[in-house]
Amino acid sequence: MDWGRIAQERLAEIATCSLPGAGVTRFPFTPEHRDALNLIRVWMDRAGLVTSLDAAGTLVGHAPGEGPSVLLGSHQDSVRDAGRYDGIMGIALACLALEKLRVEGIALGYPVEVLAFADEEGVRFPTALLGPRALAGTIDSNVFDMVDSDGVRLRDALDAFGGKSDDVTALGRNPADVRCYLEVHIEQGPVLETRDSPVGVVTGICGIERNTVTFRGETGHAGTVPMQGRSDALVAAADFIRAAHDAARKVQDLRATVVTCRISPGVANGIPDLTELTLEIRAPNDSIREDFAAKMKAEAKICADRRGTSFAIERTYLQPAVPCAQNLCDVLSKSIAATGHAGVVTLPSGATHDASAMADLCDIGMLFVRCRHGLSHRPEEFASAENMGVAIDVLANTLMVLGQ
Amino acid sequence: MDWGRIAQERLAEIATCSLPGAGVTRFPFTPEHRDALNLIRVWMDRAGLVTSLDAAGTLVGHAPGEGPSVLLGSHQDSVRDAGRYDGIMGIALACLALEKLRVEGIALGYPVEVLAFADEEGVRFPTALLGPRALAGTIDSNVFDMVDSDGVRLRDALDAFGGKSDDVTALGRNPADVRCYLEVHIEQGPVLETRDSPVGVVTGICGIERNTVTFRGETGHAGTVPMQGRSDALVAAADFIRAAHDAARKVQDLRATVVTCRISPGVANGIPDLTELTLEIRAPNDSIREDFAAKMKAEAKICADRRGTSFAIERTYLQPAVPCAQNLCDVLSKSIAATGHAGVVTLPSGATHDASAMADLCDIGMLFVRCRHGLSHRPEEFASAENMGVAIDVLANTLMVLGQ
Repeated sequence: MDWGRIAQERLAEIATCSLPGAGVTRFPFTPEHRDALNLIRVWMDRAGLVTSLDAAGTLVGHAPGEGPSVLLGSHQDSVRDAGRYDGIMGIALACLALEKLRVEGIALGYPVEVLAFADEEGVRFPTALLGPRALAGTIDSNVFDMVDSDGVRLRDALDAFGGKSDDVTALGRNPADVRCYLEVHIEQGPVLETRDSPVGVVTGICGIERNTVTFRGETGHAGTVPMQGRSDALVAAADFIRAAHDAARKVQDLRATVVTCRISPGVANGIPDLTELTLEIRAPNDSIREDFAAKMKAEAKICADRRGTSFAIERTYLQPAVPCAQNLCDVLSKSIAATGHAGVVTLPSGATHDASAMADLCDIGMLFVRCRHGLSHRPEEFASAENMGVAIDVLANTLMVLGQ
Repeated sequence: MDWGRIAQERLAEIATCSLPGAGVTRFPFTPEHRDALNLIRVWMDRAGLVTSLDAAGTLVGHAPGEGPSVLLGSHQDSVRDAGRYDGIMGIALACLALEKLRVEGIALGYPVEVLAFADEEGVRFPTALLGPRALAGTIDSNVFDMVDSDGVRLRDALDAFGGKSDDVTALGRNPADVRCYLEVHIEQGPVLETRDSPVGVVTGICGIERNTVTFRGETGHAGTVPMQGRSDALVAAADFIRAAHDAARKVQDLRATVVTCRISPGVANGIPDLTELTLEIRAPNDSIREDFAAKMKAEAKICADRRGTSFAIERTYLQPAVPCAQNLCDVLSKSIAATGHAGVVTLPSGATHDASAMADLCDIGMLFVRCRHGLSHRPEEFASAENMGVAIDVLANTLMVLGQ
């Protein structure tokens, strides 16, 4: 059986469960979501799993066994005009790894579940990770009152889909019943392509912080105020943007990006008196991220002093780093070596995944699949059948090793 | 008579001809404009002028005499929530200089006009300088079909106000009939305050060009794309913004300001793939401005190459510099000296004025009045009675010298 080719065919088919558009658009608790689950149920059935929809809208495929469970999974939803791989590939490959073991007559002995989470992207509602947070017991009950752009409450959308919003908080698992969570995901970056490797072992999920960096100067007529006496908030911000970028390049595995830039007054003739930036910092190590943030605060002061403006930095978002369990990294690495691929690539994940929330429940392990040109969240997103086949082999091998 | 104090009182009174708000808001061809002209008619009457409204809505105050006319003037309109001085002060001081000469029994002999132009700020309609352009014969007839935010056509607003849109193009004066145009205006900048001078002689009105500077890079996930391989359009733009600012500081009387900055995609997680800036360059000398613009084009290429982006520069607006007539500068300077103020300050005007359009008809001369803290186009705009008194003396003296 060419499992990679089957994966490619299944992902092409499920890509049609989408709103019209250039790429895949599949939001949670929609007709497209329902169509997708109908296909995933078939995948799970072929893998020998018994399916059920839990209260949070997660489609669970379950195979019984002795001892704590190994959970596999990813999310079914997409951003708008997305590709065919982000999220959904992790569900497809988990099902295929189990189907492969079944076809090969290999019984794992321990209970296994494949989890097809409803919502990781957070596009429809201003929240995400409902499914894994429910299992980890970390649900904030306020999320059920959030509304989408049509004014539909998450609670009502979930219940109409077949979930049970009132029962979601009761989904929390006992950590003693769970051995680990494994997720396969497209890399969404160029590292594996650059290293010419089909898959890679994720060492951890980067912590993220976002900071609003504000420079305040003085406006005035761009024609009448001489250059020497100006207090131009955009010039101070420009100094800061390049300093942050250049400093980040020197720190291993750290990423710092100014992702928004808003200026005032923003009119012809008007010297900018306000520039507001969003600086996003990510690192697999929290103390490295925190050191960098402190350095950036000092840098903002230097830039403000140089240009005669004031400045402020406010942290608006914080998500600590989540390390992957070393023993799972080791098993994944050995499984890659066992498939005949020498030179195992390890890398941090710069993006958040369902595994980020599952880490509150159990050990996590992640396998990345090579992503053409590093492009993701676009219709051009692509993973080859060959590379997905390697990921299926690695995951199947890992599941066998976990049973030994 | 304390002419400066009278000026201050008149400007306080006419400031009430305004829409409600923190500052003065007086747009052309409105009830506020009509109220203002009723006061200006009184000022002109006291100065011995015969008043009439011309086809372009300019209130003209006229005193007869022999030979070509000396024209004085400025605009009655304001930006939204403006101060009490910009524009209207030039009309008030012109009337008061003539009233002073009249009180002192000094006859000029030549014909004089004070022109209270309707519209210099261009806030209501997307055009400006209708009155002076009509006199200079440089009206573009398309402007009459422009509409304001309520959908009212300029043509209809002007005609309802008492102008005659069909006759505007016939207002063009014969250059042989006009000796010069003199305008008094608040500086709108800090130079005279810094030099502790009540007034200053304007050497010319800066040329202006605006350029759209675009950097195009590649977007990607701010977490998954390593720093080394990025093509971040905002970082390239940041390099450019600071380079333009620092280069402009080294060129005498040149001003370069990045006044708008728009980035895409502008979302958390998204590396900027597009940054579009507006670079405004002003200089009293066109070749200095053009040299600087060429240098900035080369600089944009350096910034783009350094950061792996592409770039484009497109000039979207051009207004050549207008020099003030040397003989008028000389007379104004001597008049300042004659009032007992040693050390005449000369300076370019970074902003456009009615004089910019009048320069197409005749020699122009401009006198700036000191502006507190350089603040203009705001309610806090302020010129002292004392400094306005000096300007009245200087203008009256200049008018006498021109008669000799």
